[in-house]
Amino acid sequence: MTTTSGTTDSLAVAQRSLGDSAVRYPLWPPLTSGCPKTSTEDVAYPAEVDYAYDRVPAGFFDQRLPHTGHERWAPLLPPLLAPGLGEGGTPLVELEPGVYVKDESRNPTWSHKDRLNRCTVSAALGAGAPGVVVASSGNHGASAAAFAARAGLRCVVLADPGVPPAMDAFLRAYGAVVLPVPKAARWPLTRRIAERFGLHPVSNMTRTHTGHAFGAEGYKTVAYEIHAELGVPAAVFVPTGYGELLFGIGKGFAELRRLGVTDRVPPLIACEPAAGGPLAAALDRGLPATRVEVGATGADGIACAVSGYRGVLAVRDSGGRSMLLTDECLRAAQAELARAGMWAELSAAAGLAGLRSCAVGEFDGPVVCVSTSSGFKGRGVGEDRSEPVPPEWEAVRARLRAAGLDD
Amino acid sequence: MTTTSGTTDSLAVAQRSLGDSAVRYPLWPPLTSGCPKTSTEDVAYPAEVDYAYDRVPAGFFDQRLPHTGHERWAPLLPPLLAPGLGEGGTPLVELEPGVYVKDESRNPTWSHKDRLNRCTVSAALGAGAPGVVVASSGNHGASAAAFAARAGLRCVVLADPGVPPAMDAFLRAYGAVVLPVPKAARWPLTRRIAERFGLHPVSNMTRTHTGHAFGAEGYKTVAYEIHAELGVPAAVFVPTGYGELLFGIGKGFAELRRLGVTDRVPPLIACEPAAGGPLAAALDRGLPATRVEVGATGADGIACAVSGYRGVLAVRDSGGRSMLLTDECLRAAQAELARAGMWAELSAAAGLAGLRSCAVGEFDGPVVCVSTSSGFKGRGVGEDRSEPVPPEWEAVRARLRAAGLDD
Repeated sequence: MTTTSGTTDSLAVAQRSLGDSAVRYPLWPPLTSGCPKTSTEDVAYPAEVDYAYDRVPAGFFDQRLPHTGHERWAPLLPPLLAPGLGEGGTPLVELEPGVYVKDESRNPTWSHKDRLNRCTVSAALGAGAPGVVVASSGNHGASAAAFAARAGLRCVVLADPGVPPAMDAFLRAYGAVVLPVPKAARWPLTRRIAERFGLHPVSNMTRTHTGHAFGAEGYKTVAYEIHAELGVPAAVFVPTGYGELLFGIGKGFAELRRLGVTDRVPPLIACEPAAGGPLAAALDRGLPATRVEVGATGADGIACAVSGYRGVLAVRDSGGRSMLLTDECLRAAQAELARAGMWAELSAAAGLAGLRSCAVGEFDGPVVCVSTSSGFKGRGVGEDRSEPVPPEWEAVRARLRAAGLDD
Repeated sequence: MTTTSGTTDSLAVAQRSLGDSAVRYPLWPPLTSGCPKTSTEDVAYPAEVDYAYDRVPAGFFDQRLPHTGHERWAPLLPPLLAPGLGEGGTPLVELEPGVYVKDESRNPTWSHKDRLNRCTVSAALGAGAPGVVVASSGNHGASAAAFAARAGLRCVVLADPGVPPAMDAFLRAYGAVVLPVPKAARWPLTRRIAERFGLHPVSNMTRTHTGHAFGAEGYKTVAYEIHAELGVPAAVFVPTGYGELLFGIGKGFAELRRLGVTDRVPPLIACEPAAGGPLAAALDRGLPATRVEVGATGADGIACAVSGYRGVLAVRDSGGRSMLLTDECLRAAQAELARAGMWAELSAAAGLAGLRSCAVGEFDGPVVCVSTSSGFKGRGVGEDRSEPVPPEWEAVRARLRAAGLDD
């Protein structure tokens, strides 16, 4: 079960720069604007958390424990000061032999973001902040609002005025203050609200993406869980926006190798919408991070104009690559997931879309496609209705026959 | 992980009437209209599944297995012929010391109904039907559609024309044929479609509620899971519509007692909306099932005009009782869940509403409130929007101060 108090048996010892791992900081206060020492005018470098890996108990990964959320992995996470909601522990659903979907819609607020926000809200609590502020028009904002509410903290969400109707209700559901503001104003306002109101920022505030130093650590548990069921897969396909999920999964597998539990890491395939794709552009141009114009796409959750260095590291260190997926390709993958009983938002289908764009037989062994979130969150949901049918038998029969059913 | 094929290592041996346990039927074909022999003009008696309990392996309930959905409990379920989606395995979230929420929104289609539909769609497959038909304006319909899609079966949903917008999209998401028809026409049309099109009915078709003989068996896993984490709680509060969930949980605990794993069962508290409450009325009048007028309520998911005998049995055999909750009381519980990080639809909050309507200290030991589904499914979701704020600092500051935040 998950309890109302957090747990503190973390082996986290310090923060360090992803720009230069020799640049270290104390664990507290959490770095919420990346690494100030290594960041330049052009590129902000994120920070990460380091652990006393030599103190991880023997057999730690072998234990079969009941599902208890992040607590299961507390030693390798930042201190879990905020109470949990049973985040993580999501199933691997087989799509066909050797192809698995990691269904992240099974989290407390029905997206992967809960793994991150258990960590960021814990950071806010540890930092003594009265609440959190987050720029998000979706999963991140609602998830932060839920964990903040559970921890007794306030939450302010800077949202896009064009957020889909059901998502708008979702953002407000946990008592957050939701402020729809133009997209360009969100990051500067996050910083100003953080500074003036003392709220802890749990999303990005820098020119290229850095986010919160503790957040991506929560995604390592995706790797731990996949490994517990499948070992090291032949590849992991990850819907990619700012690259935090990608990085966290990569770091989790890298830790398993470092601790001698496995001897290799899977290639991580970053799956971005073709309408944007700043990570693909950064990799192409050999840059740590870059900016692109974002065209029209329905994949709102991962349609980002800037990337962060985490994405480049994750692809490079895993021997992976990045892929750009058209909306047509994303819709086909979304439809395939629905036919398999999983209703995913368009962004969430990017992992499977990536796999379906690869040559058949390219991977020797099981592959995992992460599906990040539920279909309730998509654009257009709630905007059209089913057409009523008169209850007379002939009308009903005609509709069923038109749908291809035979009487 | 969950695989694309089902499992058949079930110990199910027969069906039997809940009206008279001496009246038995072969396991196949599944009874979809209750027990024809014991049902009368006034009351239709449901059927249930019987098992070879003497063949349950020793230590069966002690095994710590990874989360794999119903497979974990296959011997005590009907044959799981349809592939699963990792249903069940939901967390117990502590609200306060000794008060736990069983968060059923963590299922594949985000409600408890997935536990039922893994069983009913398996029955359809076993019966050789080309698809299923279901009368539902919500969770049951979408869940049936998802499992049917995964099994390669068609699905027809007879829905209420007034279904909330996000729910309408949800019902259509898995490729089901959705027919909005007047409520009074739903059960007769279910029967006619089943007869004429050969579709397997997975919801009710009888005058008082019977439903599918295999369906409620899937809810037993809620009891198994609660027991694995907490032992036998002091009470379980269950949102109650037709009483299938209530019955399944009660049967699960009764089996644990029968198999010598525990020595008692928890009292089950049936929580119905005060606007309806046919189970409370049946208990009051000493009837196996009855009918009431349903007034206005936002608790659509459990606002039922008729009850079924399952509910009476579950309350009586567990030494429980029934409670009627006003919408005001349901809304307060819904708000309490949201403050704890769980966005539940109004019906889903009925369990907690029941507990909060009891005297403090009435129960000696931990209590569990089942929360059946997510807030996305509620009426009104997607119908109003957050008010945009100009991005100028003074406007933002004013909104935050108005919300009680201090700079």
